[in-house]
Parts: sequence; structure tokens; C-alpha cells
Amino acid sequence: MGIKGTAKQSLQSAQTFIERAQQRHLTLAVTGLSRSGKTAFITSLINQLTQGNDAEHLPLFDVVRERRLLSVKQVEQPHFNIAAFRYLSGLKKLSQQPPAWPEATRSISEIRLQVNYRKSKDSLFGKDSNRLLLDIVDYPGEWLLDLPMMKLDFQQWSEQQWHLLEREPRKARSTQWCQAVLELSGRELDDEIIHELSHDYARLLKHYKNDLGLSLLQPGRMLMPGDLEGTPALAFFPLPQQMLLDEPEAKRLWQLLESRYNYYVKNVVGGFYRDHFSRFDQQVILVDCLSPLNEGELHFREMQQALAQVIESFRYGQQSWLSKLIKPKIERVLVAATKADHVTVEQFSNLTNLLGELVKGAQLFVESHEVTMQSQALASIRTTRFGHVNHQGKRTPAIKGQRLIDGKSITVFPGQVPAKLPNSEYFQQHGFKFLEFAPQPRSSEYEALPHIGMDKAMQFLFGDTLK
Amino acid sequence: MGIKGTAKQSLQSAQTFIERAQQRHLTLAVTGLSRSGKTAFITSLINQLTQGNDAEHLPLFDVVRERRLLSVKQVEQPHFNIAAFRYLSGLKKLSQQPPAWPEATRSISEIRLQVNYRKSKDSLFGKDSNRLLLDIVDYPGEWLLDLPMMKLDFQQWSEQQWHLLEREPRKARSTQWCQAVLELSGRELDDEIIHELSHDYARLLKHYKNDLGLSLLQPGRMLMPGDLEGTPALAFFPLPQQMLLDEPEAKRLWQLLESRYNYYVKNVVGGFYRDHFSRFDQQVILVDCLSPLNEGELHFREMQQALAQVIESFRYGQQSWLSKLIKPKIERVLVAATKADHVTVEQFSNLTNLLGELVKGAQLFVESHEVTMQSQALASIRTTRFGHVNHQGKRTPAIKGQRLIDGKSITVFPGQVPAKLPNSEYFQQHGFKFLEFAPQPRSSEYEALPHIGMDKAMQFLFGDTLK
Repeated sequence: MGIKGTAKQSLQSAQTFIERAQQRHLTLAVTGLSRSGKTAFITSLINQLTQGNDAEHLPLFDVVRERRLLSVKQVEQPHFNIAAFRYLSGLKKLSQQPPAWPEATRSISEIRLQVNYRKSKDSLFGKDSNRLLLDIVDYPGEWLLDLPMMKLDFQQWSEQQWHLLEREPRKARSTQWCQAVLELSGRELDDEIIHELSHDYARLLKHYKNDLGLSLLQPGRMLMPGDLEGTPALAFFPLPQQMLLDEPEAKRLWQLLESRYNYYVKNVVGGFYRDHFSRFDQQVILVDCLSPLNEGELHFREMQQALAQVIESFRYGQQSWLSKLIKPKIERVLVAATKADHVTVEQFSNLTNLLGELVKGAQLFVESHEVTMQSQALASIRTTRFGHVNHQGKRTPAIKGQRLIDGKSITVFPGQVPAKLPNSEYFQQHGFKFLEFAPQPRSSEYEALPHIGMDKAMQFLFGDTLK
Repeated sequence: MGIKGTAKQSLQSAQTFIERAQQRHLTLAVTGLSRSGKTAFITSLINQLTQGNDAEHLPLFDVVRERRLLSVKQVEQPHFNIAAFRYLSGLKKLSQQPPAWPEATRSISEIRLQVNYRKSKDSLFGKDSNRLLLDIVDYPGEWLLDLPMMKLDFQQWSEQQWHLLEREPRKARSTQWCQAVLELSGRELDDEIIHELSHDYARLLKHYKNDLGLSLLQPGRMLMPGDLEGTPALAFFPLPQQMLLDEPEAKRLWQLLESRYNYYVKNVVGGFYRDHFSRFDQQVILVDCLSPLNEGELHFREMQQALAQVIESFRYGQQSWLSKLIKPKIERVLVAATKADHVTVEQFSNLTNLLGELVKGAQLFVESHEVTMQSQALASIRTTRFGHVNHQGKRTPAIKGQRLIDGKSITVFPGQVPAKLPNSEYFQQHGFKFLEFAPQPRSSEYEALPHIGMDKAMQFLFGDTLK
């Protein structure tokens, strides 16, 4: 693998300046709520680009089918203060015996590829190669869920959050914390207690995320605080409306938390949009529709709402308030239902349709503002093969793979995926049983990773750029 | 405890602007190599200010002896993105049964106190009170140990570090890592391996720090990476001179690590001096002389060198290169040997003299540049009482306290502290046996923490300001 200097360094010599003038540059951002398979998607994308240059392997990816992809290599990433996306480290885990999934990235990471290709209008041995510098940025979808905070003041936000906290599924675990907050009333303000209650609130959010699989969790940075751990920027939480009183101690408490909320919204949430979001050209949003189908109606509705909120970030027309803050330049949004290899082949179109239903409203709106959107199902790294089982006395299509939990080979029919947004009845019948699979052993380290639909995704993302 | 808005907010109203015009502002930075007792020192300092307003408790602190200290309270810290120093949380641990030491802070933290006092020239019931806003900033001494990197290029730095790595006490654990680096020669550059070797280098540094108690560890941020974890800013390590070759692959490797070293030095090391160091008015440097006396000659010499390097940051005259980078305004430096309660009373003056010897050279130099420096011994939170043991048949002064390891009451004579820099012979005789003590149970939560020498330290730091 070759390593090149940073873009800044390249610009120092006239020669490399000319080189850069000939090359294009694209920043592809990949996000998704946790467990949606961001690391697997990026690992597969890089692997397909570097090892999958074969029309049979990527039939829908024009630059490969037309034999115009010359070479792809990893070069030095542009930002020294952003974690490296460790592609080779992930590939090593997939190649070991038994294979394992790459470690999930925390926070934000990036990797830069240099793609050499021929344009489609050039003859086979004609012109020099063209170059695309492709930056891939991975960041937690939870960060996008903070966007609505920018439109809410502390009081409105508090009202929304308490509404959630006082209802199931959150209520079962929030009662004690809510009680502790209510007990602040009439007491002298003590910042140590505020820090403790903030810490407990962060623990509540982590429980909702990790144990209940919930997605609507604000402030999102409490889940991955990094250097903000223990700072006033994260030492706040929502207050119930009945604590908005004229009494001096109550006012001081309200103002203290409000000032920290405002700081968080302006500097942490706004900071992400200014420093990162504004440089993205394309966005991939990954969605795991299958786990929530398995976990029940509350989780599915939560995912649906979270997805709607995530897509909200891309609804920036001329009039939108986000485009007043920054100049977003995202032109293409791919929404992909991952883990398509976890359903049987005849359920595949249902999964695609279900995702279509989930994003339908958003799609219309987003597309009316010169952003092209595509929704599809895919398996970044295919873990199963076709098989058959006896289901209710009939030979039924099934999937075969190694169970993640114990590596045991298993053939199952996981159930029906609804083709439309499922109603309550669907969940009462426990229609879908999601099972996690381990990656398949690689037949050769020179062979590209097996996938479903990566070529379609890549064509949507890079097809025009590499034309 | 009262909470005030941030300085920025205060400035928004004319009234608070006038208030601020009457009040003084002081930023006190506290540092020290790890285990030197930074958290205990700051906890005690705040406790003495808030609870120790008694001439018998702080006889050498003028503002207290002269009954001019009116009130001290914690107010909102100035920076929302810097961790809060959790004074009350630490005090709670000291007050529990059995008492425990406050948790050590990682990285940087701050706290702001509002000190109300009367000037010494005002009559007892005369003028209004004066106000001092006191910011206390806690940061790892390891960060100061990176300062020399700013004067070294990658080649010089590499040479120094390899010199250390190839000698004891580091050699015993570095051999394998050094071998792996040498094996990079002639191989194609692979950034994944660079990341892995950097990670292994960080583990080496952590081992040297935690298991061997060594201090000269660069780059210091590898010990506490925070948000820099996994970034190119920390993906470098020293290369041996024999790898500085004209061969293209070797050159690429050298240039890659050099560019990351340069980034680290400019942005991470330089960033600390620009963003933090430049706003400090006073500096406390804490030194644990006793553990290295116990651990042996190599450790003692390492501490001596590290202390000299730490003090280097305060040697900024008109001509210094540091004052070309920033405008440091530190006027007072207190160097304090902590844990003075861990030696018997007649060894106290030896400890003071030993510290004096350690900083003698530095003191002369620092003081010639309008920085006032004081060195003294102290116990931030006194853990022992006087006792007696039979030592070689004689009734000998001893210390009594609860052993940290098991809480057992014990009376010991830990040995002689050398009054001068000890020679090799001293260490061969194992002259000093350092024992860690638990904090004493507090007799009352309204009583100030017991100490040795905090009043002298406070008088040096604030005596003139509160005059």
C-alpha cells in the first residue's frame, strides 16, 4: 500500500498541483444507528473496490463491467486528528480462523482511497488514467439525532424528553431518576448533584440503547463522550415543566441547565454540522430493519421515528434553517436496509419494499430539493447460503450459515418480512425471528468478500463520477 | 453553593461589568507527575479556603490570621468544554467510613472559586469586601515533559528515544518492539503496521509509567489519548538512525512518521501551551520524592531529570523560544515535595533540603527572569500522627497511621531522608521504606482537613493578592 503526503503538502509543489487539478475529489459519509453495520459496509466497499474488479462479482457497477477500473490504493488520510478507519485490521479479523466481525468504530473515523480509472468515452488504450480521491467518513447516526435540538429551546426539549421518560418502554427504568430530579425543587443549587444526575441520565440513555435497543436518545454525545466526559457541556438533563418556577433557587437551576444545553447545541451539535457535515458530498444511511421486527412493535416504531429524524438532516432546501447555518453540498443519499442475507431469497423484495415504505415521505421531500435518493436492501458481507427446511410440512426456502453465538452450522427459515409497515397484529404473531450469523470463512485472501447488492449501491454512489 | 453565569454572560449586563471591574482574577495551575498528589493538593487547598478560616489552623496565611477572609464559594467554571474538578465528590470520599482518597483526575480539569476578603489597609468595619475570582486548573505533568520535543526535529528526537529504549530499565521490555521496528526495513510501507507498532509503543510507555514508575515518556499524550485515540496524530514512534536511508521505501516510512511527529509537536504540544499554559498566572509543581527514594537509584535519577524538564517550561526570559511562541505570564512557581507526613518529624527538614537541592539550579535561572519561586515540603492531607518505635534498641520517633493496603493501624520508622542528593551508596543501603497511608477519619464534616504546610504554600501563592 502506498502512502502519500497530505493534500496540504501535495499543494506545495507545482507538479503535484497539476496532478490535483486533473483529479476529482469526493467525500462519502457513512452513518447508521448502532448495530446497523457501518464497519461491515465500509470494509466491504473498500474490499469490492480493491479486490472485486470482476464483472461477474460486481455486474451492476459500470466502471468494473466496462473494465475501466485500473487500480485502487489506500493513501494518507487528510485529517491527522480524526481516527483512522482500520480497513486492514478489519479484513484480518474476517480472514482469521474462525472468522470474526471487525470491531465497531467508536466516534468518527476516516480513510482515503486513490481510485485510478479510464473514462467511458476514452478508447481502451487511449488516454491517461483519471484519478478520484475518495474520502470515506464513518460517524455515529446518533449524532444526527441531535439535530432537532437545534430547533428547540431548553424548555421545549425538556418537555419532549420528559414525555418520553414518563412512558414505556423508558418508564420502567426512569422512575427513580425522575424522582431524584423532582427532589431538587426548593433545595439549594449544588453543582455536584447536577453532575451526578447528569451522569445517571447518561447511564439511563446507555441502558436504553444497549439493553432496549432504543434510538431516540438525546443528547447523543452522552453515549460516546470522549474528551467531553465530566465537562459542563454534558452536565445537563431535561427538567420537568413544573420546575419552571419564579422562585430564585428554581430559576438558578433552570438557568444553569439551560446555559449548558445552549452550549451543547451551539458548539457540539452545531460543531459537527460545521466541521464535518458541510464537507460531505454523498451520504449512506444504513438501517437494520430486521432486529426491530424481532424485538417488537415499540422498537420498530422507535426505529421508524429515528430514521425519519436522521433523514431530516438531508431535507435542506433553499429555505431550510440548516442551510442558513452551513452550506451542505450532499447530492446523493443512499438509504440501505442491511443484513439482507439474514432473510430468505423470496423475502428480499419484501425487505426492499418495507424500507421503501419507511422512507417514502422523506424521499419525496428530499428529492424535490435536488438531492437524489435511492433506497435498497443489501448485505455488505454475505454470511449465508440458500437451503431448505420443512416448514409446516412443506419444503420451504431457508438460509444456511454459522450462528454468531456458537459458530454452529444452522439452516433456518427466519419468517416473513412484511412488505408494508407492519401493524400491531404482525408483532403479536412474532412473525420474524432474527438470528445473527458469523462471517463465512474466506476461500482465498485474494478473493473479494461475498455480498448482496453492493454493486447496485456503488453504481448509485460512484457510477456518474467514474463515467 | 451558589452558581454564577459564565464570565462571558456576566459581561452582557452593565451591572455585572462594574462588578467585574472591581474584582481580581487569578488562574492557578497545579501539576505534577502522576502519583504526586495533585487531586489531594487541590482538594485540600479548596477545603482550607472554605473551611479552614481559623488562625490556629492556617497560622502562616495572612488573610486568615488577620481575620480578613470573609467567604469563599464555588461558582460556575469558565470553560464548558473542560472537565469539572469535582471537589465535593472528593471530599465525600474523604468523609466516608472508612475514608478513601479522591479519584485521580485524568487529563485537564478546572474549578472556579469566588473569594471575598477585606484588604489589610481597610479598617475592620470599613470598606466593602473585595473579590478574587480564583480559577484552579489541574493538568498532567506529563504534558510538560513534551516541551523538549518542540526544540527537536524527528531525527534528533528519535535518537534520544532510542538511546533510552536500548538501556535499562527500559531495555528489558523494549527488545521485542525494537526488533519489530527494525524489521520494517526494506519492506513495503503498510500503514496498518505503523498503527499497530504505535499502539505497542503506547503500551510500552504505559508499562514504564505504571509498573516501573518512570517519568520521561514521550509523546506524553499516548498515556492519555482521549479523542486522539487511533488518529494519525498519535500513529508515530521513534525510528533508529540506521533506518535513515536513501532507499525509496525507507524514505517514505521516515517521511510518514516525521510528518505525524511534526503535526503532534505543532498542534498537540503547541496547542497546550497556546490554549492553556498562556493563561496561567501561577504554577504549583508537586513532586513525590519519597517513592523514588524507595524504588531505587534509577527511579530517583529519572524523577530528577523529569523535574528538571518540567521546570524547563518556566525558564522563559525575553530570549527564550517559548516566549516567541506564546506570552507566558506566570509570576510565581511553587515546587512542593508532597507526602511530608510520610516521614518522621525530624526528617522533615531533610526532605525540604533534598527538594531544595533538586531544584537549586533551576531556581537560580527561573528567578533571574522575574518569576518568583519557592520550594517547600508539605502534606496536603495529613494522614499520620507522631509515635515511637524501638529502632536498634533505642526509642525512636515514628509515624502512626492506617496502612492504605488493608487499613491496619501501624507505627513505623520509614527511615532516613537524605538532606542532599543521595549517592549510589544510599540506595544500596535501602535507606528509606515508603509506606502508603489511608486518610484519617474526619472528626467532623465542618472541620478543615489536617495538613502540613498548606498555609505556607497559600501565603506564597495568594498572600500578596489578598493583601
